[in-house]
Amino acid sequence: MKYLRIGEPGLETPVVAHQGKHYDLSGLYSDIDADFLARGGVSSVAEFPEIDIAGERIAAPIAKPGAVVCIGMNYAAHCAESGAEPPAEPVVFFKHPNTVVGPRDAVQIPRGSTKTDWEVELGVVFSKRASYLESEEDALDCVAGFVVANDVSERDFQIERSGGQFSKGKACPTFSPLGPYLVTPDEIEDVQKLRMWSKVNGEIRQDSNSGDMIFSVAHIIFHMSQFMAFDPGDLLLTGTPEGVALSGRFPYLGAGDVVEVGIDGLGQTKNELVQA
Amino acid sequence: MKYLRIGEPGLETPVVAHQGKHYDLSGLYSDIDADFLARGGVSSVAEFPEIDIAGERIAAPIAKPGAVVCIGMNYAAHCAESGAEPPAEPVVFFKHPNTVVGPRDAVQIPRGSTKTDWEVELGVVFSKRASYLESEEDALDCVAGFVVANDVSERDFQIERSGGQFSKGKACPTFSPLGPYLVTPDEIEDVQKLRMWSKVNGEIRQDSNSGDMIFSVAHIIFHMSQFMAFDPGDLLLTGTPEGVALSGRFPYLGAGDVVEVGIDGLGQTKNELVQA
Repeated sequence: MKYLRIGEPGLETPVVAHQGKHYDLSGLYSDIDADFLARGGVSSVAEFPEIDIAGERIAAPIAKPGAVVCIGMNYAAHCAESGAEPPAEPVVFFKHPNTVVGPRDAVQIPRGSTKTDWEVELGVVFSKRASYLESEEDALDCVAGFVVANDVSERDFQIERSGGQFSKGKACPTFSPLGPYLVTPDEIEDVQKLRMWSKVNGEIRQDSNSGDMIFSVAHIIFHMSQFMAFDPGDLLLTGTPEGVALSGRFPYLGAGDVVEVGIDGLGQTKNELVQA
Repeated sequence: MKYLRIGEPGLETPVVAHQGKHYDLSGLYSDIDADFLARGGVSSVAEFPEIDIAGERIAAPIAKPGAVVCIGMNYAAHCAESGAEPPAEPVVFFKHPNTVVGPRDAVQIPRGSTKTDWEVELGVVFSKRASYLESEEDALDCVAGFVVANDVSERDFQIERSGGQFSKGKACPTFSPLGPYLVTPDEIEDVQKLRMWSKVNGEIRQDSNSGDMIFSVAHIIFHMSQFMAFDPGDLLLTGTPEGVALSGRFPYLGAGDVVEVGIDGLGQTKNELVQA
């Protein structure tokens, strides 16, 4: 299944996409949220009315997460372009859940920003509590689905003004465009073989593959579950590959730029930058 | 007003304490949450029935926050005992909101932990969105109230296994005991003149004052609002003073230890440590 949410902020309708058609879930479910995901979502579209989503705002495909947990430095070539060594084990930081916006919403360049950057990332949404898991197999059993995310980052805030703690350049309003779809695991043949890319004004920036991760999705969840608990509805972002502006190879984002990120099978975001 | 929540996890009843008596808010309000705080709470207890809370579990005084935002290294003597320079501007990291527990609940020593530590902190809960504030005065206008918190930390996870990102040693389950009270600002004469202390097994560890902060509560909110937005129901922890085990002056916590933290006018937590 592919879940999505349509409508204005705070008034979103939950929808499921199946074989090219859209079905309205709002008769039985209030939202694509922790409760819905913990119950296992829907197994059939038969009982839901078809809905025409043309002209509707596409929202993030999940309600505000309980947490946005991010893995840093998870692609060797991105470590190199960032001037860092590959880590010995997963590095974690958080974004504020209120940074999540839809795949076509405006992304704000923060006031005082000079280094607003993009990061295509594979996002994982949880359906079960993951705490002290015993194996990587158990890890994948906690996954509700996958989503493409742009982990927008302000590098001056993140690196120069942060005392070394990344979150200061990661939690600016609108910095987490998601979607359009939350895609259930049965629709993804191999989550470690997905092409991932980003573009600015139509020009390719990142062009990589989830197979280049240092730590796999299953390993990240298994490992991090020894240090924290993931709950249903939480979002995990698994790091970005090379090709961001921080590398020095591309200019940072400015107002009027259009940034796109996409992952095979998950769709793509396309957000215009505006000045906050 | 002093708000609190009583009852078993997931079934808490919102209560207000006033002049030594307790009143049940559940007839009108479902919880001490973002909605309740954004509406301004209650101005009088007259319309609420008195309630006897004897024998009830005391929960955290707020529902699960939208985010737990933490300021690091905000007391000069704690920077020194941690081997760090005082920062030039506020340093921020996040805890997972699912770390919040009540003031008498068990705190879990994580599996594999050798360095579980305590941190008394002044917590701030928001009633309004705080984004791009224009002054420190505007900052205090966004505050619903104050709470005492124990920012429990695993130093090996935080420092040695983290790639430098603190959250890995901060987000373990049960690592954020709060309460018992959320105290509204009108009950606090000067939030920068509050004695703060911690004890382990009845022996004093930290004994300091919120006046020792490098960055005041108002400055932190004003400053951080340039980098992120706080929403109603969010929790901000404002850093810990000297006297933690990381200093080398005291042993780390073990199963069976009892840790207490308190702040003048806000009450105190008292949590027993158990092995996860």
